Amino acid sequence: MKSSMANVCLFAVGSTSVLAISVVATLAEDDADLLKRARELFEPLPKDMATLESPVSKERVDLGQQLFFDPRLTVDGNMSCVNCHQPALYGTDALPTSIGVKGRADPRNAPTNLNAALNIIHWRGDRESVEEQVIKALISPITSGQPDLKAVEDRLGCISGYAPLFKAAFADDPNPMTAQNIAKAIGAYERTLVTPSPFDRYLKGKSDALSATARAGLKKFINTGCVMCHSGVGVGGGMYQKFGLVEDYWLATGSTNIDKGRFDVTKDPTDLYVFRVPSLRNVAMTAPYFHDGSVPTLPEAVRVMARVQLGVTLRDADICDIVAFLESLTGELPAKFTTVPTLPSGSIVPKQ
Amino acid sequence: MKSSMANVCLFAVGSTSVLAISVVATLAEDDADLLKRARELFEPLPKDMATLESPVSKERVDLGQQLFFDPRLTVDGNMSCVNCHQPALYGTDALPTSIGVKGRADPRNAPTNLNAALNIIHWRGDRESVEEQVIKALISPITSGQPDLKAVEDRLGCISGYAPLFKAAFADDPNPMTAQNIAKAIGAYERTLVTPSPFDRYLKGKSDALSATARAGLKKFINTGCVMCHSGVGVGGGMYQKFGLVEDYWLATGSTNIDKGRFDVTKDPTDLYVFRVPSLRNVAMTAPYFHDGSVPTLPEAVRVMARVQLGVTLRDADICDIVAFLESLTGELPAKFTTVPTLPSGSIVPKQ
Repeated sequence: MKSSMANVCLFAVGSTSVLAISVVATLAEDDADLLKRARELFEPLPKDMATLESPVSKERVDLGQQLFFDPRLTVDGNMSCVNCHQPALYGTDALPTSIGVKGRADPRNAPTNLNAALNIIHWRGDRESVEEQVIKALISPITSGQPDLKAVEDRLGCISGYAPLFKAAFADDPNPMTAQNIAKAIGAYERTLVTPSPFDRYLKGKSDALSATARAGLKKFINTGCVMCHSGVGVGGGMYQKFGLVEDYWLATGSTNIDKGRFDVTKDPTDLYVFRVPSLRNVAMTAPYFHDGSVPTLPEAVRVMARVQLGVTLRDADICDIVAFLESLTGELPAKFTTVPTLPSGSIVPKQ
Repeated sequence: MKSSMANVCLFAVGSTSVLAISVVATLAEDDADLLKRARELFEPLPKDMATLESPVSKERVDLGQQLFFDPRLTVDGNMSCVNCHQPALYGTDALPTSIGVKGRADPRNAPTNLNAALNIIHWRGDRESVEEQVIKALISPITSGQPDLKAVEDRLGCISGYAPLFKAAFADDPNPMTAQNIAKAIGAYERTLVTPSPFDRYLKGKSDALSATARAGLKKFINTGCVMCHSGVGVGGGMYQKFGLVEDYWLATGSTNIDKGRFDVTKDPTDLYVFRVPSLRNVAMTAPYFHDGSVPTLPEAVRVMARVQLGVTLRDADICDIVAFLESLTGELPAKFTTVPTLPSGSIVPKQ
């Protein structure tokens, strides 16, 4: 069976709207080929992101969820993980760069914590795991302000309702209320935050889970070369790459602060302007884009990427199709993310 | 039928634990009398808190919920209503006094927004309605930092996904994306945040919805005189009273900052140290206590109130019973409060 259809899409680039019309000729045999290629390049999401060292038990996940939402562990007692990873904003804060305790500026854009355990953690890869990320966040001057892990543990000890919950989650641990166990619990929770999307249903064989436009976009995403970096289960997230392979990134993004990326972590000259390739899962819901949030819309981000990474000038119609594909990566939010837990009550005395 | 039971309760007062034992003699006829008296003094919660001027439609409530969770309207773009009214903490922030945008200190404790439309709004009653509270919060230097309502409306206009939602919620309004309509929508949402509790089931005639201890506590709550101020549907919330009728409040609370209360609003000398009487609904979940959050635990708050308002020194066993009654005011959280909405995506450019 052959079919052809007109696809009309309207999107905003800067302050002007562009009406892009693309005609997509779709062949059934093309669809089968496309699905085959997609299956070679991508994988559906797993049920969770547990590992042997980082198991996921109900007790740990429940506790981790509570700790994730609890603002009382940070120095002022008014900032939890949720501040930068808001469930209402798909695990982001929608800001170019985040604002931490006492108004302190984070130098980079907060990546979503959804599906995070699958990816290199943070833009510069300076975290080994979601658990290490928690430990570092608990004492970061920006995200916590607490001077050391002891101060965090002391704060935890003030909220008596946590004792039985730690005991249940870490039954073999005679002294379970530790910062390491906070990290294990929040890590376990994050390892359950998986967002299956229409693209996963597509990869599992349901070809019409993607619209004809999204399938055209997938084909262009592959053929343009985006897939050289954005592949695998995360559609990205698994490797490092220089941002600005063809052209300095700041010429296209307008970034005013030139971030040297992974170079500042490794001091290796080959890491200059190198960042982790972000997962594109939920990308349509996680504006603004790039490590510094310098680009506010997805069509513009696609245009910039093609230009500075691949030296390709995409037509508006191509961008439109690719965006339709990227929208198919928007997943369902897990109930444990969108349903707020009730925390053990108890007031703390914040430090000045 | 007569029965008697021993009630053992352990609670912390300051740093010491007190084991209080009270023997409760309960008579069936006493129970019937108690229920009759309770029904004269209190009322069950209504289904919602809509009024003729402030109706509650699904579209307005849905929109109001989204706006309540959206951090992008405040000056830095990183603080929503949720920061001080966290669903995970029964609509409070668990802090003695709140912290606003750019770390600015709020002078008073954030009251829960649950059942708020039933009550005098704010500790000093300087808001006429939940809607007026929203309007004032949108331009408060502490809670928002935006210079005027126009700046809030401009910010809203940057998030294009809101346009159809405002149109649906305010169908007759040719220009619906206004600060006044933000207030109406969040107000409508808050008017649905009702938390029915075991005490409501009790008032509706189910005597065993309260434990024998809680019923003993209710009796003591009435007979000690707490009910002179804490009555009606909110178990408080409906009147003003001087804090410290018998003795200056700061002698009992240890408050270091003497707040003149409603006097600062009205300049009327009879309003010196006058505050709204807070609703006690969900009080067990909303520590710390009083306008300045100066008392961290509920048993201590009960002890202080009896002392400074009524000149009564309560025995530990009485406090224990009264706390059991107050715990029966902990209600079920509405799903629209504990389930996070998905917000229209879109990034904003925060102001410095």
